[in-house]
Amino acid sequence: MANSNQLSPAVIDVDLIIEARWIASMAQDFVLLEHHAVVVKAGLIVALLPSAEAHQRYRAAEQFSLGEQLLIPGLINAHTHAAMSLMRGMADDVPLMPWLEQHIWPAEQALLSAQFVQDGSLLACAEMLSGGISCFNDMYFYPQATANAATQAGMRANLGLLVLDFPSAYANDADDYLQKGFDAHDVWRNNALISSSIAPHAPYTVSDASLGKVVTYAEQLGLGVHSHIHETQDEIARSEAQYGLRPIARLAKLGVLGPNLLAAHAVHLLDYEMDMLAAYACHVVHCPSSNLKLASGIAPVAALLAKGVNVALGTDGAASNNRLDMFSEMRLAALLAKGATGDASVLPAQQALAMATINGAKALGLDDKIGSIEVGKCADLTAIRLDDVLLAPCYEPISHLVYCCGREQVSHTWVAGELRYCNGVYANIEPNELKDIVKTWQAKIRQIQH
Amino acid sequence: MANSNQLSPAVIDVDLIIEARWIASMAQDFVLLEHHAVVVKAGLIVALLPSAEAHQRYRAAEQFSLGEQLLIPGLINAHTHAAMSLMRGMADDVPLMPWLEQHIWPAEQALLSAQFVQDGSLLACAEMLSGGISCFNDMYFYPQATANAATQAGMRANLGLLVLDFPSAYANDADDYLQKGFDAHDVWRNNALISSSIAPHAPYTVSDASLGKVVTYAEQLGLGVHSHIHETQDEIARSEAQYGLRPIARLAKLGVLGPNLLAAHAVHLLDYEMDMLAAYACHVVHCPSSNLKLASGIAPVAALLAKGVNVALGTDGAASNNRLDMFSEMRLAALLAKGATGDASVLPAQQALAMATINGAKALGLDDKIGSIEVGKCADLTAIRLDDVLLAPCYEPISHLVYCCGREQVSHTWVAGELRYCNGVYANIEPNELKDIVKTWQAKIRQIQH
Repeated sequence: MANSNQLSPAVIDVDLIIEARWIASMAQDFVLLEHHAVVVKAGLIVALLPSAEAHQRYRAAEQFSLGEQLLIPGLINAHTHAAMSLMRGMADDVPLMPWLEQHIWPAEQALLSAQFVQDGSLLACAEMLSGGISCFNDMYFYPQATANAATQAGMRANLGLLVLDFPSAYANDADDYLQKGFDAHDVWRNNALISSSIAPHAPYTVSDASLGKVVTYAEQLGLGVHSHIHETQDEIARSEAQYGLRPIARLAKLGVLGPNLLAAHAVHLLDYEMDMLAAYACHVVHCPSSNLKLASGIAPVAALLAKGVNVALGTDGAASNNRLDMFSEMRLAALLAKGATGDASVLPAQQALAMATINGAKALGLDDKIGSIEVGKCADLTAIRLDDVLLAPCYEPISHLVYCCGREQVSHTWVAGELRYCNGVYANIEPNELKDIVKTWQAKIRQIQH
Repeated sequence: MANSNQLSPAVIDVDLIIEARWIASMAQDFVLLEHHAVVVKAGLIVALLPSAEAHQRYRAAEQFSLGEQLLIPGLINAHTHAAMSLMRGMADDVPLMPWLEQHIWPAEQALLSAQFVQDGSLLACAEMLSGGISCFNDMYFYPQATANAATQAGMRANLGLLVLDFPSAYANDADDYLQKGFDAHDVWRNNALISSSIAPHAPYTVSDASLGKVVTYAEQLGLGVHSHIHETQDEIARSEAQYGLRPIARLAKLGVLGPNLLAAHAVHLLDYEMDMLAAYACHVVHCPSSNLKLASGIAPVAALLAKGVNVALGTDGAASNNRLDMFSEMRLAALLAKGATGDASVLPAQQALAMATINGAKALGLDDKIGSIEVGKCADLTAIRLDDVLLAPCYEPISHLVYCCGREQVSHTWVAGELRYCNGVYANIEPNELKDIVKTWQAKIRQIQH
C-alpha cells in the first residue's frame, strides 16, 4: 500500500538539537545562518536546518534554545604545550634565552614527570574548554599524560610524539623518544578523541639523522609532523652557521616539507620561503601573542594567506602568552596583520574565525571530522552570548565575535555532541580540586626559583 | 590631666575600609603591598596600612574584605570618544578614509544630537565601569551630554571642549565650538568629578587661527589641550603639502606644544620629534588596538618612554577598537612594544599598569587627585579577582593582571569612595533599560546603512 501521508514523514529520534539566533557554520560558502538548528545523533551532526523545520522532523532527547547567541564550530588551538600552564607567569618580561635557560628549563629539569604533565594539561583543558576550545594540538613530554587529561576533560586532542636529540626525565635519545611516542600512540589508537602527529621539537634541537627517521615513520604511519619552524632570527642564524642552510631549506633537503607538515610560528620568512611553504602545501600555525611576548617578531600572515598557505591559529604554551585564549588570538591576529601591512581590510573577522576553526582542522588533517558545522562531521560546537550590554550594539555577529567578544562570553562547549562546559561548570573537572593541585605544584616551582 | 592611655588612641570613625591580599598603590616606589587596607573618608584616602592595624585604628561604616584579590588605582582611559559606542562594529575591516567618509560621518550627520551623545556615553560608562575604569578622557560633540552620562554613572571624566573648523549639528565654526564648550565648562565648574580640556580635533581639521585661540584660552583658563596628533602618515603628508611643515613642527610654531598638551596616538614620529615631545614635556596617549585596527601603524612607545615622555593609555572610541577595555590595551601595549623592538624586557607589566593609572592622571593634569593609592588622593579604586582556576597559578600579581587577567575579573569599581560597579550590578545604571535604548539607535543606524 502506498504511503498517503507524504507531507508528514515520520519524526526521527535524535540525541540533541541546538538552536541559535546565528550559526556560523564555516562551511565552504561562509554564510551566516539565522534561526537555524544543529541536529546531533551519536556525536555526529545529522542535520543543519531552519529551527522550525528541525522541530517538525526531529525529536531530541536533549534540546538547547540559545536565543541571542552565536553558534560556531569548536575552536581549535593548533599549537600549544598544555602542561606548561603550571609555569604560567613564572618569568614574564624576560628575553627568550634567559627565559628558557634560567627559568623554564631548570623548572622542567627539577619537576618534569608524568604527573606534572597530567596535572598541568588538565589545568589547560579547564581553561580551554571554558574559552570555547574543543580541540588542541599539543607538543610536550609524556604525551600519554596529556592524553589522560584530555580524556578526563572530554576534549579532542592531537598529541605530538615529541622527538629531541637531548635527554630528559621522559626519554634518553631520539630513538627512545620515538619508541615512547609510538607506545603511547598504540594505547590511544582506539580513542576517538585522541590522534597523533610526530613532533620533532625544532630544527635546532633535532639532527638530520633523527629528522630522517621522523619522515620515514610519518610516511609509514600516515601521521602529520608538528615542529617549531623559523620562530626566531637566532634559530635561522644558528642553522646557517651549523648547516650552511636556513632551516626551511634544510627541512626541504631532508624531505620534511609536505602537506603533512604543521609549522608553528613561521615568523621570519623570505619571500621564496613562503612560496616553498605554499608549493609543498605545508600548514602554518600563527601564534601572535607568544611571538610578541618573547619578542620573536611579527609573522607575515597576510602574505602567507595571499600565497594560499593554510594558516591556523595557536596560543603556544601559557608560559609565553599567558592565556590559552583563542579569542585573544583571533583579535590580535586580525589587528596585527592590519597594523603590520598598513591595510585595514587585511585579515577580516571571518578569516580570523576560519583560522581558528576550519584552517586548524586542515592543519591537523582532521577536516573530515571537525572545523565546520556540516552534516557528517563531529558535533564539536561552541555557543557565545552576544546579548551582554557591554557588547551592544551588535551589527555583524562574526565581526562582533572577533573584535568585541571575550572568552567570558562563551556559554557552552560541546565535544562530539557531549556538553563538556556550561556557564562555569565542567562535566568532568572540579575547579576547586584542580586549584589545590595547582597550588602544590606552584609551591614546588617557587622553591626552585628561590 | 594627661592622657595615660597613649598605647590605645581613640578609634577614628571613617566611611570605608577595603582590605585586600595585594595592593598595587602605584605610588613612587611601585611596591606591592600585601594584606593592607585602604581607609576612606569623604571620598578621600585617609590611610593605607596593614589590615590588622587598620582595624585597630579605624571603625568604618562599610567594609570590604576582598581576600585573594588585587586592589589597584581606578584605571584611566586617557583617550576615547564615549558616544561612539553606538557605532561599535558598524563598519569593521574597512580602511580609514572609507570608514570615515562612507560610514562614520554619514551616521553622525544623520543622527548626531545631545541625546545620541548622552545615550552612547552612558553605554560607554557601563562598559568602562565594569572593566575597572573610573575615569575617562573624552573628545566629542555635545560634551555636556557626556557630562550628564558620566554624572549618572558616577564616573570621573575629563571632557574635551571640541574645536573644529567645519560645521556640525552641534556647532557652526571654531568660535561657536569654543563658546559652546565654555558654556558647558561653566555648568560643570562645581562638579567634583568633571573637568575640562580644550580639544582641537586634529591638526588637519583646525586652522592656524583657531589653534591660536585654543592656546590663548587654554593659558587663560589653565586648561589642558587634547588633540589627535601624527595618527597616520596621510595626516603628515597633508600637512607638508598644505603648510610645508609636519604637524608637530606646525604645532610648535603655533605654541601648542607644552606640558598641558595631550597628544593622542603619536604613531609616526621622527627621532627629533620624540625629543621635542620630551623637551616640551608633552603627554602621549598610546592607543594600540585602534592604531592596529585602522592600520595606522605601531607607535614607538619604547623609544618615547626611554626619552622620558609621559605615555598614557587609551582605547579610542568603540567604533575603532571595538572594546573600551583597558585590560586589552595594557596587554597589547606590553606585547606590541616587545614585538616591535625585538626586546622581551621592554615595557614590563608594571610599566603597562603605570601607563593605565598614574601616567594617565599626569596626562590629564589630575595626578594630585587620582592615579595612585596615596593618602590625600581620591578613592578611585578597582578590585580584581585573581583566584579563578583559569588564571592559576599566580606567581606575580601585577604581571598576572597585565598578561593573564581580563576585565571579566574586575569585581568592584569605586569612584571617589562610592561603589559604582560590583559583580555585574551598577549603582546607577539599569542594563536592560540601557539595552533597549541602544536597540533604538541601532535600528536608526541600520536604516542609514541600507
